[in-house]
Amino acid sequence: MKPIQVGLLGLGTVGSGTLRVLTQNSNEITRRAGRGIQVVRACAREFDADAIGSALDGIAITEQPEEIVNDPDIDVVVELFGGMEPARTLIFDAVVNCKHVVTANKALIAHYGNEIFQAAQENRVVVAFEAAVGGGIPIIKALREGLVANRIEWIAGIINGTGNFILTEMRDKGRNFADVLADAQRLGYAEADPSFDVEGIDAAHKLAILAAIAFGKPLQFDKVYTEGITGITPEDVEYAEQLGYRIKHLGVARHAQTGIELRVHPTLIPERQLIANVNGVMNAVLVKGNSVGPTLYYGAGAGADPTASAVIADLVDVTRVLTAAPEHRVPHLAFQPDAIWEFPILSMSEVKTAYYLRMRAADRPGVLAEVAHILGERGISIEAVVQKEPASGVTDVPLIMLTHRVMEGQMNEAIREIENLDTIRDSVTRIRVESLGEN
Amino acid sequence: MKPIQVGLLGLGTVGSGTLRVLTQNSNEITRRAGRGIQVVRACAREFDADAIGSALDGIAITEQPEEIVNDPDIDVVVELFGGMEPARTLIFDAVVNCKHVVTANKALIAHYGNEIFQAAQENRVVVAFEAAVGGGIPIIKALREGLVANRIEWIAGIINGTGNFILTEMRDKGRNFADVLADAQRLGYAEADPSFDVEGIDAAHKLAILAAIAFGKPLQFDKVYTEGITGITPEDVEYAEQLGYRIKHLGVARHAQTGIELRVHPTLIPERQLIANVNGVMNAVLVKGNSVGPTLYYGAGAGADPTASAVIADLVDVTRVLTAAPEHRVPHLAFQPDAIWEFPILSMSEVKTAYYLRMRAADRPGVLAEVAHILGERGISIEAVVQKEPASGVTDVPLIMLTHRVMEGQMNEAIREIENLDTIRDSVTRIRVESLGEN
Repeated sequence: MKPIQVGLLGLGTVGSGTLRVLTQNSNEITRRAGRGIQVVRACAREFDADAIGSALDGIAITEQPEEIVNDPDIDVVVELFGGMEPARTLIFDAVVNCKHVVTANKALIAHYGNEIFQAAQENRVVVAFEAAVGGGIPIIKALREGLVANRIEWIAGIINGTGNFILTEMRDKGRNFADVLADAQRLGYAEADPSFDVEGIDAAHKLAILAAIAFGKPLQFDKVYTEGITGITPEDVEYAEQLGYRIKHLGVARHAQTGIELRVHPTLIPERQLIANVNGVMNAVLVKGNSVGPTLYYGAGAGADPTASAVIADLVDVTRVLTAAPEHRVPHLAFQPDAIWEFPILSMSEVKTAYYLRMRAADRPGVLAEVAHILGERGISIEAVVQKEPASGVTDVPLIMLTHRVMEGQMNEAIREIENLDTIRDSVTRIRVESLGEN
Repeated sequence: MKPIQVGLLGLGTVGSGTLRVLTQNSNEITRRAGRGIQVVRACAREFDADAIGSALDGIAITEQPEEIVNDPDIDVVVELFGGMEPARTLIFDAVVNCKHVVTANKALIAHYGNEIFQAAQENRVVVAFEAAVGGGIPIIKALREGLVANRIEWIAGIINGTGNFILTEMRDKGRNFADVLADAQRLGYAEADPSFDVEGIDAAHKLAILAAIAFGKPLQFDKVYTEGITGITPEDVEYAEQLGYRIKHLGVARHAQTGIELRVHPTLIPERQLIANVNGVMNAVLVKGNSVGPTLYYGAGAGADPTASAVIADLVDVTRVLTAAPEHRVPHLAFQPDAIWEFPILSMSEVKTAYYLRMRAADRPGVLAEVAHILGERGISIEAVVQKEPASGVTDVPLIMLTHRVMEGQMNEAIREIENLDTIRDSVTRIRVESLGEN
């Protein structure tokens, strides 16, 4: 089957990320979508061809976006220009030309979504915007589909990564707002004009979108109360801490009895709450449904590849609609039935993890050295040791170790040998350790 | 349009929860689905009619499940019997009769999913199973649709609520496994035969499902290495803590270079990790995609209403497929275009939150009383006060307060009056406080 033909408006950070991810993961994407996804034309004035590399092969570049939205061979237009114009006109043109649209443009959707969706409805096309909120977190899908059984009571989200990075740095290092902002600008986490982020406007765009979807009401960006983080001082961060709270910049939408609250402002939240522990540039959205209770969605809220992940999820959604029978739009096991592969499943002895070991050792010099020797012979390095004082009158002491990662087969052999030592009582307790992406 | 006709197999906890949520939220569900969802027949030997109440109205009850899977008027069969037989035969019969199926039956999917999905494919029906993993968390949808752009590198999930409850109690209270298990059984969090939960079998069912979807491989429950939590001692929990870790019962699926790891076992994870702080009966799944990075999905992993939330999400998915044009299966704003309503948006003065207040006060007796009096006059009660010693040679002290919830208009008036006090310097810093569901 002919691949879906995509026209790309914009080759900046997210545009080039989208090309890179489409190329790098084309195998998995096609196995899931049931059809290739091919970017045939892209529009950009300037772009970094070297950085994009071979992902540009076969793509016709133009400086005229109209050539893309009017190209009869293009099925889907991906709008990554951002901002109001020309993005707005181009999206309307694409829709009127009966092209599906995928966009990451939160400002545009927040301001003009009502009109855009009506035009899409009339022209029987999809305008998809997963990337507009929460970067790679599939929060739009969770709200529009996953939580449909619920009356949504409220949403509270950390939906601006720059703001969260600044507040996290202020807390971790006791620094003031202006210093951290300057750093963030140097690191590329904040724009030269940071007002959209630090004044809460970007978060207000996203909150307007989340609230419309949660409550079934129009997009009403102009009704969002918006307060930024520029007034937060190191003292407030510290006092909040002493009281058991963290200061986070939240977007809150609540279905109260008398109406709906739409507000973006700094907020103290109890440090026990999971969302209080979402740090740095990460985003998270906490959604309270009346049937499911609280659910939370966490991930990278910005960045080229995470945003590309959401853009491509929308592209696959459209591809599946245009390709499969409706009832088999999404394959049962995510991948097309003829693209389910067999992989070797590793036995536990082939699995590599770190280990926690606990043993009862004779309280006598040299025991630790003996155990360390057995581990060392197998290339198992020790990350931490805890040796407890013996209780009075007891000759055994607990010896606890954390090791670095090693193949379980190796560890099993080492444990057998340790258990054979005269100085070790009973068996060794072994629990696996996973750093989950930390080093 | 005639409502979708549903036949329900099972009126136990999840079955009656499904009826209750369908009734209670029927307005929002219909606005989203574009069509009513009506349970017309239900099968159960015994059930608690009083507990279900009016949600049973109009439902024909039968003891013969065949009457449901063979009823030509039924569009969708919801299988909530659980276990192997008769659920397995009934699902195959429903599929052969070209009925869509929604099931929460993780054991059945883990064991027979490959055959069931093949039959569904041949008969052009959907077999949906969001409720099989992670209760109300839309994790199947996130993996099958939200993260399609990614090569999934690994998944690590707390996917058994009973096990997590036990480990949380052991840590919080320093208690041993057997005592906590007995409590959990008394509270109804653990079955009389707890082996599925504490031996890891239930988690292995779920992991087999997640891994198949993540990697595009067949369901292989028999290949999952499974180790329970029965051997975890209070000492290990405490030593782990001292080393900066928590012990969690994880299901891990990893796409390693040489093959795939499928394993369920107790695991030490760094306490800084969000998932290390998922406590009690809550579930969470951490998914690492090569483009999106780490994402996490958190919520209630069991219980009548959360599981019903997932069952109904699947029912709405099927309803949308049977009702709307494919490209408008999911409405842009989640609710059907003609079901978008206007709600009053509250001004900030009408919004109720708690507050953090910080002010500079003269270091002189009676200041706190003055401030408290102003707040008290407006019914604003104080939850905590921090008063700092003045620095030497300074006559002002910082005064910090947390208040209970109050309408912002009231608080604004109080702040104006406080700022007029002779004993208060400058303006009052005010930051809103959200407990996010805590009391």
